[in-house]
Amino acid sequence: MSEFELIGRIAGKARSTERFETGIGDDAAVVRTRGRIVTSVDTAVSGVHFGPERPAVESARKAVATAISDLAAMGLGRGDSMEILVALGAPPETSTGYLEGLADGVVEAADEFGAELAGGDVVSAPVVFLSVTAIGHVAEDRPLITRSGARPGDVVAVTGPVGGAFAGLGLLRGVEVTDLSDLTRDLLIRCQVRPEPQLAAGPALARAGVSAMIDVSDGLLADLGHVADASRVGIRLEAESIPVVAGVREVSAVAGDDPVSFAVTGGEDYVLALTVPQDRFEEADEALIAATGFELLAIGEVVQEDGPGYRGVVRIEREDGSDLLAPPGFDHFAGPEAPGR
Amino acid sequence: MSEFELIGRIAGKARSTERFETGIGDDAAVVRTRGRIVTSVDTAVSGVHFGPERPAVESARKAVATAISDLAAMGLGRGDSMEILVALGAPPETSTGYLEGLADGVVEAADEFGAELAGGDVVSAPVVFLSVTAIGHVAEDRPLITRSGARPGDVVAVTGPVGGAFAGLGLLRGVEVTDLSDLTRDLLIRCQVRPEPQLAAGPALARAGVSAMIDVSDGLLADLGHVADASRVGIRLEAESIPVVAGVREVSAVAGDDPVSFAVTGGEDYVLALTVPQDRFEEADEALIAATGFELLAIGEVVQEDGPGYRGVVRIEREDGSDLLAPPGFDHFAGPEAPGR
Repeated sequence: MSEFELIGRIAGKARSTERFETGIGDDAAVVRTRGRIVTSVDTAVSGVHFGPERPAVESARKAVATAISDLAAMGLGRGDSMEILVALGAPPETSTGYLEGLADGVVEAADEFGAELAGGDVVSAPVVFLSVTAIGHVAEDRPLITRSGARPGDVVAVTGPVGGAFAGLGLLRGVEVTDLSDLTRDLLIRCQVRPEPQLAAGPALARAGVSAMIDVSDGLLADLGHVADASRVGIRLEAESIPVVAGVREVSAVAGDDPVSFAVTGGEDYVLALTVPQDRFEEADEALIAATGFELLAIGEVVQEDGPGYRGVVRIEREDGSDLLAPPGFDHFAGPEAPGR
Repeated sequence: MSEFELIGRIAGKARSTERFETGIGDDAAVVRTRGRIVTSVDTAVSGVHFGPERPAVESARKAVATAISDLAAMGLGRGDSMEILVALGAPPETSTGYLEGLADGVVEAADEFGAELAGGDVVSAPVVFLSVTAIGHVAEDRPLITRSGARPGDVVAVTGPVGGAFAGLGLLRGVEVTDLSDLTRDLLIRCQVRPEPQLAAGPALARAGVSAMIDVSDGLLADLGHVADASRVGIRLEAESIPVVAGVREVSAVAGDDPVSFAVTGGEDYVLALTVPQDRFEEADEALIAATGFELLAIGEVVQEDGPGYRGVVRIEREDGSDLLAPPGFDHFAGPEAPGR
């Protein structure tokens, strides 16, 4: 299957609305817009972000889902016009069936998430990869939530439990866990291979006045670290409040790891982590319930960056006040004014 | 050098103007726009589109240049607001110096072409690649040129000679050509490693009323084939009129190839190929001279698709009327109504 045949297959299946003055297949797409665009790029590499043994349709969907997730984390959702551009690399010997699966997966995922396909590029490469750029269109007055708005005193919360995708990865890689039901096993693998961008939660929370928001891709600890960095605050989490997906405990036990440590360092959860002023928490919770049926889960608080031991970092405390993990950059033996820091 | 350090290096060097409500480093960039966006994605893979032995800065620049070239082919140029998003894949063992070179090359190229950096993603991959999405912003009334506007009778033209990049690739791969001056050798290699997106020519030609336009990336023959396909026309080129870069003749001779055949099938020229109504040719020529100092070079004409032997294909005729190449899909033994076609 040639590059042009593959592009033709994608272009032929892609729907495109009257927003598109020129669609996929020209030098560039021309899209009518409104006020502002919101844009991000995300890449999935075979053997790194998805397994070569998994169905191509599923892997392509995951690549699109993770790109769309970044727009959800800004507050975009199903009602918003969105498009994607997809760069696909594949070795020349890749089977036609696999390439068709990738093409179909891209088109189906775009459709599932309410995005249109605006561009594609197919290149020869030693490994299969998909690089997906997502573009959303929003009016000037639309509230968008960055990573930099967290303020001391804000509640830190997540839209769902974490650790499932990392546990699922372990199962796919052959970690043997005896005391897992088939249902739980399937759930964990599903977390890994079929992430769900929070397109209902994102706009609901943005409208409810959350102060900072991020999608959990690198791991809850790292991603809240990005929020702490960008907002110049510290974050204190309560280990006991961090929700983990069912079955994570059993998988983490095989690795000899604490389930919360395992869950917050794993990544690929694609739930939203956010901060919200205390007096807006209830409103945000109600908005999330109305949009998704799920409660907003409080897991900690935003603190002063120059509080004891905080340097734009995240600490996770056990009930007894001890640190669950040594936070990155946290020096147990030095105060904030220690020399050389 | 970690992913975050690399992103930090890029973000720290990137300029961003007041169009950016949120810049690189958040979940997504937020950019104020006007009317329409023009967007395209282009990918460069090490060992395929650039050599691993070439300087990283140069290779990153080439990746950005080819993406920007697609916007130039629509009629965008230096006066237009543009941004890029870059997905970078690299093996974990890639040297810090090489990664820094790629990061610097992206930032410098964005600056050179008047684009801003709106997003980045750095991933682990078995091969170095850069996937660059370019986004341009234009007002509603701005003329943009697609591939589909060519009409029978239009003149076919290019903004410069072709074949240089392919000849340069041959030299880089060690083809021995004895009768080339150092100057010519350097010119050909430069064509390969340092493409110049036609940001001055693109908007000038668009305003002058050309009917279809494309940047020559796959090769003049293939790219005019895309125009013929999209416009449902045939294209007849005069072999003697097709300009080739100095030195292409000598390199093609080593390959035992005709210089024009060599030049039109090579690709990566990044000149613009276009069609223009006959009564607008002079205006387009003058516009190009005013914008770039170079003349518009007529190389053929647009013909009816159902003319003898045309099926949305490009024929290149020698002075004696014979075909230089069997055009793709052209059947020498069958007319357009032959059975089975």
